[in-house]
Amino acid sequence: MNKVYASIITIGDELLIGQTIDTNSAFIAQQLNGIGILVLRRIAVGDRADEIRFALDQESSYAQVIILTGGLGPTADDITKPFLCEYFGGNLKRDPATLAHIQYLFNEVYKRPGGLLERNQKQADIPDNCTVLPNPVGTAPGMLFKKNNVIYISLPGVPQEMKDIMKSSVLPLLQKELSTPVILHRTLQTIGVGESVLAEQLINFEKNLPPFISLAYLPQYGMVKLRLTAIGDNREELISKVEHQVALLKKEIAEHLAIDTNEELESYIGKLLLERNATVGTAESCTGGLIASLISTVPGASRYFEGSVVSYSNEAKQKLLGVNPSTLNQFGAVSEQVVKEMVKGILTSLGCTYAIAVSGIMGPNGGTPEKPVGTVWIAVGNKERVETKQYKWGFDRSRNTKQTALSALNLLRLLLLKESMD
Amino acid sequence: MNKVYASIITIGDELLIGQTIDTNSAFIAQQLNGIGILVLRRIAVGDRADEIRFALDQESSYAQVIILTGGLGPTADDITKPFLCEYFGGNLKRDPATLAHIQYLFNEVYKRPGGLLERNQKQADIPDNCTVLPNPVGTAPGMLFKKNNVIYISLPGVPQEMKDIMKSSVLPLLQKELSTPVILHRTLQTIGVGESVLAEQLINFEKNLPPFISLAYLPQYGMVKLRLTAIGDNREELISKVEHQVALLKKEIAEHLAIDTNEELESYIGKLLLERNATVGTAESCTGGLIASLISTVPGASRYFEGSVVSYSNEAKQKLLGVNPSTLNQFGAVSEQVVKEMVKGILTSLGCTYAIAVSGIMGPNGGTPEKPVGTVWIAVGNKERVETKQYKWGFDRSRNTKQTALSALNLLRLLLLKESMD
Repeated sequence: MNKVYASIITIGDELLIGQTIDTNSAFIAQQLNGIGILVLRRIAVGDRADEIRFALDQESSYAQVIILTGGLGPTADDITKPFLCEYFGGNLKRDPATLAHIQYLFNEVYKRPGGLLERNQKQADIPDNCTVLPNPVGTAPGMLFKKNNVIYISLPGVPQEMKDIMKSSVLPLLQKELSTPVILHRTLQTIGVGESVLAEQLINFEKNLPPFISLAYLPQYGMVKLRLTAIGDNREELISKVEHQVALLKKEIAEHLAIDTNEELESYIGKLLLERNATVGTAESCTGGLIASLISTVPGASRYFEGSVVSYSNEAKQKLLGVNPSTLNQFGAVSEQVVKEMVKGILTSLGCTYAIAVSGIMGPNGGTPEKPVGTVWIAVGNKERVETKQYKWGFDRSRNTKQTALSALNLLRLLLLKESMD
Repeated sequence: MNKVYASIITIGDELLIGQTIDTNSAFIAQQLNGIGILVLRRIAVGDRADEIRFALDQESSYAQVIILTGGLGPTADDITKPFLCEYFGGNLKRDPATLAHIQYLFNEVYKRPGGLLERNQKQADIPDNCTVLPNPVGTAPGMLFKKNNVIYISLPGVPQEMKDIMKSSVLPLLQKELSTPVILHRTLQTIGVGESVLAEQLINFEKNLPPFISLAYLPQYGMVKLRLTAIGDNREELISKVEHQVALLKKEIAEHLAIDTNEELESYIGKLLLERNATVGTAESCTGGLIASLISTVPGASRYFEGSVVSYSNEAKQKLLGVNPSTLNQFGAVSEQVVKEMVKGILTSLGCTYAIAVSGIMGPNGGTPEKPVGTVWIAVGNKERVETKQYKWGFDRSRNTKQTALSALNLLRLLLLKESMD
């Protein structure tokens, strides 16, 4: 099997002082994996020629493909292009096609005709020994260089531009140039069980895996994802061997399995709702709209998502959800009784089939001895039945909120599955 | 000036196949910067001893501090600890204090008394040549090794655990061991102007900066942050020199300046509302609760955030916000008239002082020739006045949504400032 190794180098001082979180590398790694290229390392370096040179020299010792992102913008702190030109022994020349595209963007898209500055025009200056990779949505094109059988690709750091160039140019070019093995990933998602308990349960499963399939545990916010990775030459054969292991794994973890693909929970729930021709609405206090926002990230969510009431104040709970003031007085806003009334309220006001309601104390302040920070009540239900559950998180505000949103979506998932079995 | 360089190494196959976005490195870099340590490189490698060895050998050629995260969990794919033990020539020994802490977590926090598996107990096996860095919220402690004047620190990959150990152990220890210069960052945030226009305007400012202060441009979602970074020996002196440059920079970009610190827009708006003793509510269609969710990420937001209606469907717009069905029919849901009525509706139903309303088409579907994907109407207002603005984004669903949320918050910021000048 002919393995092809890659390295990803991200360039920018903002990465080294922690002002920016690098999301580009994950996307690039996914895409390279999809065409059978293994990423061995990822490096982040600053906007300095010596640092980029050091990284290129090092990474080319093992990688056949090196992808660089960042450092191609129009400002003085971007030094990547002149450096690459020198590193590969070329000369900067103004590229007419790139210049025409920049002019088009300024005139037609940015609507700034005549606004083309010399520094924008300079983005059309390209090393004469590279292949230009057009950037449909931005001014800085990608560049492909070759040296000693290594392919170097430089892409802008703006995520959307990087993604477009990856899909339209980089992947097709790499597939043409390289002969790569097949890499497959299959992920199963569990909810509500710890990594170590799963690992204990899977000792024998893991021991019996063939050498070309490996298992990884990926814990995150109350979920543990189990990922099988397989590498081989024949796609059909590999798929059948992986699916055989997937079936075995599913049996082992049946009681914890939430989703048998890598699909996001909110998207999976969307499908369950569509299948049932049902709709959902949310009534959120402590999550402040996060559950609604997650549901609506899914394209086409308008087919099953009616809307939400974010009732941050007690007044909003009364006015918009019809929660009884005496319930609030007697039991407090964070109580089983109140989330039950919130479910009823949103079902009535939106006319949706299912509802999620949450109320809790996310911190850092607002806790009491009786209801400490992290206390949350969740209710899910429809006209016929409402189910509730209490959680007591011990994390910070941000994670408490995310765990609550995940748990609420998962309770809806369980209710939908239970209802269809009744 | 005695500069101290660091490298951050994150360990885990999930980083190399793009299943996980690395947020730990950014946090660690920020924290190290704060105590005067410069991060020169960040590396991500897989769960393989030879890869970790290669990275440690390389990074120790320039770094005095190396921080590793990940690979310390209880499952078989975590190989970091045995490797480090061997690399630094120690032996694994069960640490009684760590074991007692793990037992405490299982009994008192996880509420699984008797649930301690051998693999959990093994997390108390620590190399006998390291300093244990206690992990208050998790089972895997951090470890500090020294070799040839380089400090190596290994931390778990779970973000909350890594953060706790950084703050409680790593930073105090590094400050005691090392003598570091002062590093200062000052950030100004602009909205609604391009990076290249700003750069053009700032040519002379940048040319006249003293050599120990540098300027960087950080574009993101409709904002460009301008960051000044200074390095020196005397904190007081450096602060006064940086603030002098900040004052000059503010004059140069006065018309574009939105926030003169690195504070998040939603947190800045929170302060403006508190100063005015005012409250806010949102009526969101296309953003699906994202604006509410952003507002409520700020601790203490309940003092000025009343709540929201996410009116994804037309029905919800009518029932919960009192939007007139004839307005919807005549102008469509994405129209100036509808967002105006949404503002009125939320002001009335929540009794808040200010309101934000948005309606748009985020894609990938739902566009028409008249109102293509990316069309958005935003209204902000109070009882006396409502201001509206239309945007036409050209991005994908996720970015269109984020740009809309940012723009809506910015329009509220402008209105709040305008009102206080009236």
